[in-house]
Amino acid sequence: MIDELIGKIKETGNPTVVGLDPRLDYIPAFLREASYDRFGKTLEGAAQSFLDFNKAIIDEIHDLVPAVKPQVAMYEQYGAEGIRAYIDTIRYAKSKGLVVIGDIKRSDIASTAEAYSDGHIGQVDVDGQAHTVYREDFITLNPYLGVDSIEPYLGNCDRFGKGLFILVKTSNPNSGEFQDLLVDGRPLYEIVGAKVEAWGEKLLGANGYSSVGAVVGATHSQQGIELRKLMPRTYFLVPGYGAQGATAEDLAGCFNKDGLGAIVNSSRGIIAAYTKKEYKADFSEKDFAKAARQAVIHMRDDLNRVL
Amino acid sequence: MIDELIGKIKETGNPTVVGLDPRLDYIPAFLREASYDRFGKTLEGAAQSFLDFNKAIIDEIHDLVPAVKPQVAMYEQYGAEGIRAYIDTIRYAKSKGLVVIGDIKRSDIASTAEAYSDGHIGQVDVDGQAHTVYREDFITLNPYLGVDSIEPYLGNCDRFGKGLFILVKTSNPNSGEFQDLLVDGRPLYEIVGAKVEAWGEKLLGANGYSSVGAVVGATHSQQGIELRKLMPRTYFLVPGYGAQGATAEDLAGCFNKDGLGAIVNSSRGIIAAYTKKEYKADFSEKDFAKAARQAVIHMRDDLNRVL
Repeated sequence: MIDELIGKIKETGNPTVVGLDPRLDYIPAFLREASYDRFGKTLEGAAQSFLDFNKAIIDEIHDLVPAVKPQVAMYEQYGAEGIRAYIDTIRYAKSKGLVVIGDIKRSDIASTAEAYSDGHIGQVDVDGQAHTVYREDFITLNPYLGVDSIEPYLGNCDRFGKGLFILVKTSNPNSGEFQDLLVDGRPLYEIVGAKVEAWGEKLLGANGYSSVGAVVGATHSQQGIELRKLMPRTYFLVPGYGAQGATAEDLAGCFNKDGLGAIVNSSRGIIAAYTKKEYKADFSEKDFAKAARQAVIHMRDDLNRVL
Repeated sequence: MIDELIGKIKETGNPTVVGLDPRLDYIPAFLREASYDRFGKTLEGAAQSFLDFNKAIIDEIHDLVPAVKPQVAMYEQYGAEGIRAYIDTIRYAKSKGLVVIGDIKRSDIASTAEAYSDGHIGQVDVDGQAHTVYREDFITLNPYLGVDSIEPYLGNCDRFGKGLFILVKTSNPNSGEFQDLLVDGRPLYEIVGAKVEAWGEKLLGANGYSSVGAVVGATHSQQGIELRKLMPRTYFLVPGYGAQGATAEDLAGCFNKDGLGAIVNSSRGIIAAYTKKEYKADFSEKDFAKAARQAVIHMRDDLNRVL
């Protein structure tokens, strides 16, 4: 799967992944009202407005970016109806040729991890009838439980051509509370990073990168540079650009000299661009998806400036 | 919420939580077939058989145990239909007076954690219309991202009378890979444990325990004893008894002298009791729920033997 992602990054000349993390606050009133007219102010009404919003954004950006990253929490909070919108968003994005990174950050012991793995990136069996359920191309995982909590995903990555991004150093302000603790003089995130690099050895693609990637927050630029050296074959999923405060310069060190090695996420900065003052003059609420397209172009150019 | 859990533990004289982690392998053929007759071998067919199975078990055990712990992965793997069965299981368990611990092990940065928190233990707002969605009483969380990933849950615990169990030392064989790493001579899980104890200070109940609990695997008995000392006000959710290999003696150290301080999970050992040789002679497949009841009685007596 990493080769497919890299192929799309090269094709679009754009190492950007658009975070599809809708909030009702970001959904234009006309879209919300259309959904409430059909379903009321219900969980289904909220979920349908997310799906309508995502489809319009995907229609405008699918030729410009390699991938989208729906954050499952935004959907999961609305129950079964939300999960349905998450799944339908994934299907729509894939129908437009996008690589889909499911931001699920799951973590559990082996027998339970198998269930997540089969549901998200494999197949579930109902007495001889196989079903593919979520269909993400990549998913994110949390490593705190150790290798036996990761192994159940590696088999499905191999069998179904999927990939992972495992949390190494996250973008949030307190990520250092545990991740930066020193173990024999070495921060924990480096130890996790070295393990992630090792776990990926059996899933190397033709491009020399592994389908087992790492989440490395752009808000910690020096740590990105160090991890880039420590994990030469690991692709980085880099959150924190834009709304979380990181600049293109901050995250340049997550890339290799060939311009590969990282894909940078922006969520609010793109999908809610129409609410921001730099786009408001040119784009009305009706044109929210066109504003997202313009924000993608700005981000692409900003990233390419430093690569 | 911790006071309600402790009240139920005292009332039943049983510090057991039954893990509702169904697998199709455990569902008696007659139940599966009844569900497939209605829905086919679909995701809905699988999910409905889980719900029917859970309801029968709950009917037989609700007077004997304080709580149940559905593992969301088992349901989530079947998509929106699975999530619906998860939610319906929670509602049914609560209607029978059980405390429900949602084993979700979520982890994410603050803005995303808010969505999980509102959906699972708070309320979501759809343009002025409030919805309570999952309705667990407690949920499990993963601490790798640090305190700002936990804070969004603490507010809802306070406001809605809910609780948490945060992973400290997990029961799986490789849990030590990161959790046992030494930081200035102290294992990481102890550092996490001390933080969990501190995070719970504002949520102390009348019994002296906090609504912020910890997951401490029974498979590591010495570590349970050490954590019990380090975290006097933290209730422990203890997985690993039975199918994962821990005995009552192994986990006795997770309890305080008053017999409180821990609640022990068993999943397969109870819900799949009818498949095990010690119950097969007395219980047919039709009597799977009665076998679960007998297994609960055996576990209760086994735990009380060492307390």
